[in-house]
Amino acid sequence: MPSSIDIARHVEWLEPDGPDGDVVLSSRVRLARNLAGFPFLTKADREDRRHVLDLARQHTLSGDLADQMIWVDLTETTGLERELLVERHLISKQHAKGDEPRAVAISSPDERLAIMVNEEDHLRIQVMRSGLRLSDAFASIDTIDNTLEQCIDFAFCPRFGYLTACPTNVGAGIRVSVMLHLPALKLTGEIEKVRRAAKDMCLAVRGFYGEGSDAVGDLYQISNQTTLGKSEHQILENFECEIIPKIIAYERHARQTLLKKRRLVLEDHAHRALGTLERARLLTADEALQLLSAVRHGLVVGVLKDEANLATIAKLMLLTQPAHLQRAVDKEMNQSKRRIARAQLVREMLAP
Amino acid sequence: MPSSIDIARHVEWLEPDGPDGDVVLSSRVRLARNLAGFPFLTKADREDRRHVLDLARQHTLSGDLADQMIWVDLTETTGLERELLVERHLISKQHAKGDEPRAVAISSPDERLAIMVNEEDHLRIQVMRSGLRLSDAFASIDTIDNTLEQCIDFAFCPRFGYLTACPTNVGAGIRVSVMLHLPALKLTGEIEKVRRAAKDMCLAVRGFYGEGSDAVGDLYQISNQTTLGKSEHQILENFECEIIPKIIAYERHARQTLLKKRRLVLEDHAHRALGTLERARLLTADEALQLLSAVRHGLVVGVLKDEANLATIAKLMLLTQPAHLQRAVDKEMNQSKRRIARAQLVREMLAP
Repeated sequence: MPSSIDIARHVEWLEPDGPDGDVVLSSRVRLARNLAGFPFLTKADREDRRHVLDLARQHTLSGDLADQMIWVDLTETTGLERELLVERHLISKQHAKGDEPRAVAISSPDERLAIMVNEEDHLRIQVMRSGLRLSDAFASIDTIDNTLEQCIDFAFCPRFGYLTACPTNVGAGIRVSVMLHLPALKLTGEIEKVRRAAKDMCLAVRGFYGEGSDAVGDLYQISNQTTLGKSEHQILENFECEIIPKIIAYERHARQTLLKKRRLVLEDHAHRALGTLERARLLTADEALQLLSAVRHGLVVGVLKDEANLATIAKLMLLTQPAHLQRAVDKEMNQSKRRIARAQLVREMLAP
Repeated sequence: MPSSIDIARHVEWLEPDGPDGDVVLSSRVRLARNLAGFPFLTKADREDRRHVLDLARQHTLSGDLADQMIWVDLTETTGLERELLVERHLISKQHAKGDEPRAVAISSPDERLAIMVNEEDHLRIQVMRSGLRLSDAFASIDTIDNTLEQCIDFAFCPRFGYLTACPTNVGAGIRVSVMLHLPALKLTGEIEKVRRAAKDMCLAVRGFYGEGSDAVGDLYQISNQTTLGKSEHQILENFECEIIPKIIAYERHARQTLLKKRRLVLEDHAHRALGTLERARLLTADEALQLLSAVRHGLVVGVLKDEANLATIAKLMLLTQPAHLQRAVDKEMNQSKRRIARAQLVREMLAP
């Protein structure tokens, strides 16, 4: 395991004090890039992949980026270590699988920047920030993209833009996404309207762990689906200044309505969740996330006050995930042992 | 309201230190008696009822019993006050209803003895004790019965025994019942076997509040159904020395099995219940009783220790009932207000 990934250190994107942090957990911008002169990974053999890997390593570990980057060769990691990287959103689930030559370069210690090498594209560069900070994230990633482009020849076609393995990424090659906490819309049932509206706008709505994951803990990841024919700035502006603020306003309105009309139900819901977290002896990861979500909701609307704090709840959202939990107690455990250890960790961290 | 019913004073039959108190909450013996020369209540007019009432009052408030008895004329009480008496098991639900002349004489302050006047029979004499103490209860009630018989002429026929309004009570006119806490048999699903076995033995199995009430809180009231052709001693011995000890052993065995095989599930169950009670802002009477039952189970098997104590849990089983709750906060409340007040009372009483 890369020793410089310190789970005790909180991932920056989960810090609760980002802009609009009452609703937006984090913002992410991701660029898909491929190296000119190498086949896409669907056609690449092991030697092509190694070549790409070597070039990526050489260029991400030199020059302006060098100081802060660490390199993790995924073929040299255990499954548990890769799972930890997935939980920190530094690599995708897909990237954690298989035995092909692949790696990730991570900026340390902030972990804002991650460059997956040989995932679906040769390079997938991502920048994550807490709260609604897509422009900031884009400014960072744009600088990094330019830096890399000075020494790497990216596959680019004047007519289409950047060429990518999947047609949906062709063009700007940009994917923007935000992780939203929408407990009030879930409680009022209005979340389905958001889902439908998002679908109409060709946005993808996913759970905490991306593609295929359910919206456990009332956490929804919303991202653009296509990039062809639009500039980065159009995509970004549309997302950051129109779509997301609307959802934020909608969630806040639902929270206010609940506070006015069903304050006691809300109080009861948040306090019961806290009581269960404080006392349970067995907790699954999904239940923990759901209960932490209810407590987070209670804290941001003020029906919970000194009984818990947002920073601890955010920490627990990550530390109760299976790989983090096993790292925290420093041993591999099966699912039933994890339930015990998870409940114990939660109790200890919530103890006054 | 009879001022001498003090809800702050715990009812003796709920004290957790009776014999076999880990399983048996309380024992009750009840005698049905009718006054010779008066029609049964199904045929009695208001004047007959008043006559019975006067005689009963005269004889229960004089002689050996006089010192300790208080007299409650139910026609002079409010519905809430009668509900309080039902919750303390001093009168039946049926006795609480209607506007016919009727009363209850209660021994104060222990409340062990209650004599319902003009319920289904002219007199229903009951003695309740905590734990498995049917013989003790019978000895008390036998003395009281003899005392009353010295001055009241009971309807008695040498061939059948005591005559009662309902044929199932004819004969010894005795009903014995115990309130059992059977959470382990409920959890393992074996409770259905107990129900069937009880049915085969012509025993009635009811909930915490008698006829028509569900077994909320894993509390089961088991009683004999017929008395004709059997002596009091046969009925009592069969119940106290054979049937009930078997159920007690069965429940204890289930508790030990759960402790051995599913200790963590048990711990989790009890602690979650406690966590919910400590934090909830809204509680129905049924949910409170169910959660208190889980905590009681946890305490008697030792998976809960200093986190709560049996006496408080027993107190709360009574004080969370609607009438007691309203008396505790000294005002009448609708159901939704009661939920709030109940949760608050529970939190206050469980606070360290």
